[in-house]
Amino acid sequence: MRTYLDCYPCFLSQALRTARMITDSEEEILGILSEVCAFLAETRLGATPPEIGRRVYRIVAARTGVDDPFADVKSQCTRAALSFYPKFKRYVRDARDPLRAAVRLAIAGNIIDFGANIEFDLQRDVRDILNQEFSVDDYADFRRALEKAGQVLYLGDNAGETVFDRILIEQLGKPVVFAVRESPVINDAVWEDAEAAGLNGVAEIISSGCTAPGTILNLCSRSFVRRMEKADLIISKGQGNYEGLSEENLPIFFLLKAKCRVIAQDIGIESGGIVLKSARSSSQAKAGGKRRETGRVKLVIR
Amino acid sequence: MRTYLDCYPCFLSQALRTARMITDSEEEILGILSEVCAFLAETRLGATPPEIGRRVYRIVAARTGVDDPFADVKSQCTRAALSFYPKFKRYVRDARDPLRAAVRLAIAGNIIDFGANIEFDLQRDVRDILNQEFSVDDYADFRRALEKAGQVLYLGDNAGETVFDRILIEQLGKPVVFAVRESPVINDAVWEDAEAAGLNGVAEIISSGCTAPGTILNLCSRSFVRRMEKADLIISKGQGNYEGLSEENLPIFFLLKAKCRVIAQDIGIESGGIVLKSARSSSQAKAGGKRRETGRVKLVIR
Repeated sequence: MRTYLDCYPCFLSQALRTARMITDSEEEILGILSEVCAFLAETRLGATPPEIGRRVYRIVAARTGVDDPFADVKSQCTRAALSFYPKFKRYVRDARDPLRAAVRLAIAGNIIDFGANIEFDLQRDVRDILNQEFSVDDYADFRRALEKAGQVLYLGDNAGETVFDRILIEQLGKPVVFAVRESPVINDAVWEDAEAAGLNGVAEIISSGCTAPGTILNLCSRSFVRRMEKADLIISKGQGNYEGLSEENLPIFFLLKAKCRVIAQDIGIESGGIVLKSARSSSQAKAGGKRRETGRVKLVIR
Repeated sequence: MRTYLDCYPCFLSQALRTARMITDSEEEILGILSEVCAFLAETRLGATPPEIGRRVYRIVAARTGVDDPFADVKSQCTRAALSFYPKFKRYVRDARDPLRAAVRLAIAGNIIDFGANIEFDLQRDVRDILNQEFSVDDYADFRRALEKAGQVLYLGDNAGETVFDRILIEQLGKPVVFAVRESPVINDAVWEDAEAAGLNGVAEIISSGCTAPGTILNLCSRSFVRRMEKADLIISKGQGNYEGLSEENLPIFFLLKAKCRVIAQDIGIESGGIVLKSARSSSQAKAGGKRRETGRVKLVIR
């Protein structure tokens, strides 16, 4: 997915939010915002949002000297999610279609996203998503692809969400390779976060080589790109991975909650919708419903 | 009121929203955003938001060649508000305290603000405000100051809102001078907008000399500043005027709806609150409750 005009103010908001997690110094935060503004002034729309986001978060890290401002947050999220693990396992076990229940739960875990939000209510938000209709639902295709697949390449997203991923992986019944980011960015899962969620017991953990908050093939390691190209089935979690991979012609299923309006419109759904979308299936025909970038603002006076 | 860090992303959003009202060209809009980013990169926090906003809207005007993108919107708002004029007059006439009803109505008119919003439902929003509790209510002081005042200096805000101002002015029972902006900025009222609302029949219309979306004394004409300094009673409508004048030691009563979180926190109230606030009264003691600019983000995981 390309960067849209609406992403510009959002990058600045993300920088502000992250800077505030690190420092109380208004002067320091202003310095960060100024540098992000100067960077954005030179940025064209060609890149995907995670490519620009990577640079924005690097400015915050460079100016504060804090490489991983979300370290504590990530641990807290993983611990919180683990405390629900037994309950979620029962939910899947008791479901009429346990695979579908696990898919739904994995999407629910996608609420743990500090790029998009700063507050969430894990229990309430998960419960809501478990009762929500899918906005795109390629489950039948997913099930067929899974049956045929020898192995699954699973692209992780956020720390804590990894616990929900583990539940889905335990349900897939296939060998799984779980890919994490190369280094900390926002609250995206790195190796330690995957381990803390217990994923090392159920999957082979690898790094994508990517330092952006998403999977951008030209920023990934060559060995990882080869894995992507040879994969039977790729499960891509979350917005950042979608943003990087939505145009790739690969056997990808995107699992996400569209927390941001721009991504929702890119997919052609309402904001807040939950998605299980094949990169290759008929739901791509929905492209006609995709958002037009500009178009005059509609004035509403009633 | 000073500019807060949260104003930075908002300036960018405002530029984007305004640019979209003028053009469908993504390239042109991106050029505007880039120039606004470059300008913001050099901007310190010392200025008030309307001073920075003035420069932001000038960038949009200069790059598009459109000086008054809200011209049509302003006419539509004035016409829409005038269609409610008889109904609102009855509301005031039938009220137990017609002055208070007119004050409330004037605040309700402050929803017509394209700096803060792009959509509003005039009938519903006005009705809601007419039934809303005040978050700051210096009405007793206001009533006393009005009784003593020889003349009232009334600082207008937005076009369309001017119709609501007219109803309050008709209720004041004192000679009124109504100040408008020197030239178009956002949907702020200029001379023509005041006339279109029928204000020329009930007040002397003057320009403040200010081209910012607010009243910034060092950007106003000298004759206007003298009027401010000599005024018995100043009624200041809306956020922009508050942002410019909140620190001035003058006999001002601020009438506004706090549509933006930053202004609400500066006043020490919840966002969405309605305000009749004396610049000099005891409600200033609330300053202790004012917003701390920084302070770490509170993480909420439940």
